[in-house]
Amino acid sequence: MILLNLERNSQEPIFKQIYQQLKELMEDNTLKPGFRMPSTRALAERHGVNRSTVYKAYEELWAMGYLESRPGSYSTVRKRQKIATNGQKSKTGLISWGKLSSDAGQMLHQSYQKFKYKINDVSSDVINLASLELDPRLFPVQDFKRCINTVMAEQGAALLGYGERAGFKPLRKAIATRLRIHGISVNWEEILITNGSQNGIELLLKMLTVPGTPAAVEAPTYSNVLPLLRYYKTNIIEIPMKEDGMDLEYLQRVLENGSPKPAFVYTMPNFHNPTGISTDQAHREKLLSLCETYRVPILEDAFEEEMKYFGKVPLPIKSMDRRHLVIYLGTFSKVLFPGIRIGWIAAEKEIIQRLMAIKAFSDLTSNSLIQAALHEFCREGYYNLHVKRMHREYRKRMHTAITDLREHLGGFDKVSWTEPAGGYLIWLKLKDTNMDEAGLKQIFLQHGIILIPGTCFYSDAYSYPGSPSHVQEPSLHHFRISISTLNEKEIKQGISRLGSAIAKIYQQ
Amino acid sequence: MILLNLERNSQEPIFKQIYQQLKELMEDNTLKPGFRMPSTRALAERHGVNRSTVYKAYEELWAMGYLESRPGSYSTVRKRQKIATNGQKSKTGLISWGKLSSDAGQMLHQSYQKFKYKINDVSSDVINLASLELDPRLFPVQDFKRCINTVMAEQGAALLGYGERAGFKPLRKAIATRLRIHGISVNWEEILITNGSQNGIELLLKMLTVPGTPAAVEAPTYSNVLPLLRYYKTNIIEIPMKEDGMDLEYLQRVLENGSPKPAFVYTMPNFHNPTGISTDQAHREKLLSLCETYRVPILEDAFEEEMKYFGKVPLPIKSMDRRHLVIYLGTFSKVLFPGIRIGWIAAEKEIIQRLMAIKAFSDLTSNSLIQAALHEFCREGYYNLHVKRMHREYRKRMHTAITDLREHLGGFDKVSWTEPAGGYLIWLKLKDTNMDEAGLKQIFLQHGIILIPGTCFYSDAYSYPGSPSHVQEPSLHHFRISISTLNEKEIKQGISRLGSAIAKIYQQ
Repeated sequence: MILLNLERNSQEPIFKQIYQQLKELMEDNTLKPGFRMPSTRALAERHGVNRSTVYKAYEELWAMGYLESRPGSYSTVRKRQKIATNGQKSKTGLISWGKLSSDAGQMLHQSYQKFKYKINDVSSDVINLASLELDPRLFPVQDFKRCINTVMAEQGAALLGYGERAGFKPLRKAIATRLRIHGISVNWEEILITNGSQNGIELLLKMLTVPGTPAAVEAPTYSNVLPLLRYYKTNIIEIPMKEDGMDLEYLQRVLENGSPKPAFVYTMPNFHNPTGISTDQAHREKLLSLCETYRVPILEDAFEEEMKYFGKVPLPIKSMDRRHLVIYLGTFSKVLFPGIRIGWIAAEKEIIQRLMAIKAFSDLTSNSLIQAALHEFCREGYYNLHVKRMHREYRKRMHTAITDLREHLGGFDKVSWTEPAGGYLIWLKLKDTNMDEAGLKQIFLQHGIILIPGTCFYSDAYSYPGSPSHVQEPSLHHFRISISTLNEKEIKQGISRLGSAIAKIYQQ
Repeated sequence: MILLNLERNSQEPIFKQIYQQLKELMEDNTLKPGFRMPSTRALAERHGVNRSTVYKAYEELWAMGYLESRPGSYSTVRKRQKIATNGQKSKTGLISWGKLSSDAGQMLHQSYQKFKYKINDVSSDVINLASLELDPRLFPVQDFKRCINTVMAEQGAALLGYGERAGFKPLRKAIATRLRIHGISVNWEEILITNGSQNGIELLLKMLTVPGTPAAVEAPTYSNVLPLLRYYKTNIIEIPMKEDGMDLEYLQRVLENGSPKPAFVYTMPNFHNPTGISTDQAHREKLLSLCETYRVPILEDAFEEEMKYFGKVPLPIKSMDRRHLVIYLGTFSKVLFPGIRIGWIAAEKEIIQRLMAIKAFSDLTSNSLIQAALHEFCREGYYNLHVKRMHREYRKRMHTAITDLREHLGGFDKVSWTEPAGGYLIWLKLKDTNMDEAGLKQIFLQHGIILIPGTCFYSDAYSYPGSPSHVQEPSLHHFRISISTLNEKEIKQGISRLGSAIAKIYQQ
């Protein structure tokens, strides 16, 4: 016989007390699976409560799976699945996720494992010439905080709902205005806010490619774009970089012969990643004109447009784009801070509307609060001040880097490097080392520095079963030097260590 | 002859003055394209400056495309591409983006155009029973603002760099802890932070499907998942919803006969969107057991797990998952606010690591600042308080909705609706209307309410050329009623208007 202890004066309704107590009796196995429950009438009479009250409790027990009733019969206690605590879980699952994962998804996983920088594995004394993150000591934290508070106070809840699909309109306007400084004439409807440039590139791949579509990129190129191109099974066409930028004769041959023609040409005209090269005006005009002739879109990745601190880099290709062919990728990550995840695409409205739909089904909308704070940051003039400060700082830093490279590496005739006109990147070239890349990495690490090895920037590094191979193994070893995260003192120290490592490599 | 006006006492270096003045002469066409420039020696002598100074200025003019030099000859002024201002741009571009866009990308564009709610087109007096956004009047704006300020003060710059790829670790821990309330036992390494659930679903599609892979979903189902499944060219298998949830016999037949078997079964066991149905414990166990038998992963979309305010909904399927088969999708969007774009996936570590790599190449990382603020919000107890407040509020609101539906619609025997055990959604069924969906929508609008028509929630609405069709046209008309954005007064008014509209439809 079931004994319940019902408190009539409790806050808790009677049906809830019945439910709770019966549930406990079943959970501690006092009422075992198969036990025949008293009828609602019997239980109600015994405890002097309304039958409907007991019925309500039984109903909840049914819903929660504690009871089962057989038609025309009594309810019985149900054998219930237990909650899976850690001890009860099987060590190995039913599914081998690696096998279930798509080949392309598996390739991303392997690429990530292969190239993630194990910065935590190395001593804190190591100088990081690898990372292209900005120096957090230069982040305008207080100003940004002030902007967040202002917009929270002024707009509050309105910024915490779903935002506009294409991005916070005032920010789109501010970006369109800012782009005029770089000679680009677009309006806010031609701007889409993205979760950083990487997100922008993916949206464009989704719009412009299907498996097998050719896509032209510089070789070497931005390493994070290559696995993405592989994932979307594009046919990667690598256009070699020359000293003055992408080899346009090579590109022309590709465009002439290519069938189907590339979905786009992806290029970084300023401070190219990883080589640091900026193209001159003539190169930009010729590239645009070539793509106009063959009607191939240009994806202009302008990730460091704002960092022309030496002042001799021409305006973006997009500034000359009369025929709506150039899709311009911008970002705040490489001049302000990356953690806010805000970049943008500037392109013809037809493109923006399509990308907006693709983005909407991918993440509905971006974070409005941060977009509003960033708009406030621009509106208040903090952004302009910050860019000026960044120019002053990195002009000095890059100058130091170049001067010290000349001093410490100038004596090695097998070693050369690019001297960039801005940005953060220097491309180091080592001839005739008699050592493989892994060996060189090891020596750098022994000397307390890390650099990114050149092979990361070629598509061959990101192949998966069935993917085509394009790359000719480079006959030289390259390493990318980034100064973005270091101050002058750290740069001096890093390059001095690089000098010792190079001496070791050539045993001089 | 070129006359320059050089100021020796100026802040501006001489080479810069030369560069600037020559540039202006070229831009205003005083020096015309083809003009033969004086040699650096001649210009240096004429102005009494060092030849290398003039050389430096010429060098910049070359880089910027103002000069071209012919080998063994003088430099000449170059015909330069003009910046494309609005007036100079052609009206139509070289490329028809609609044609260039992938079929699947184009389908997303059309789906977006077709179903976006033109809320701005309707009068502000209209009551919105369509939107599944939360009521912004309930957002805990001040508490969240306090949390942002705390984490900015304590961690500042550290939150503005690139964050951890799988999400802010303390937030992952807080979510793992919170999930214990729902009977789910996972640790922080089994949590991936996503940009809302939509992003989580896309990451899973990228990992688990290739074109042609079957995927089982409820019919009807969440409307935003269907275009995404179409985009990834999955073969959508629609499992009919019965009154107690997905038809498990139907599912069993699919799993038995299906070759290849579905990549996953996507289900919303609580307050299903759009029907509002919650499955009972037995249904959950049977679904899990079926999927274990056939080794098919379950995607459990628990978007309203926290909104069990009537208290009679069982624990999630994930709580019973001993064989690591269930991939659980959670979000803050439907209990706190959606604008922060934070959701999560709880699943076996093997899955999380793969998804993390896929996400890394898609957007590098999510916003750390907002994740840290949200963690602070949970840590300070604001989240618990908020959930309790939401329960109190929506318990009243849903009660009002149900009571009023009975009052205003109870008299129509051709009209029925679901009475949900929590959440925000009610599924309205209209029999024998002699009217099509567009006509019904029109009548609702005339009565000052908008509701989402049922056909949006079936895959047939999102087809593109070449995609297969699965849906049997439902013999009844359905509309989704959402109360999420309305207070009690608005709900009363909305349902009263619905009553009048229904009377009009059936001409009573």
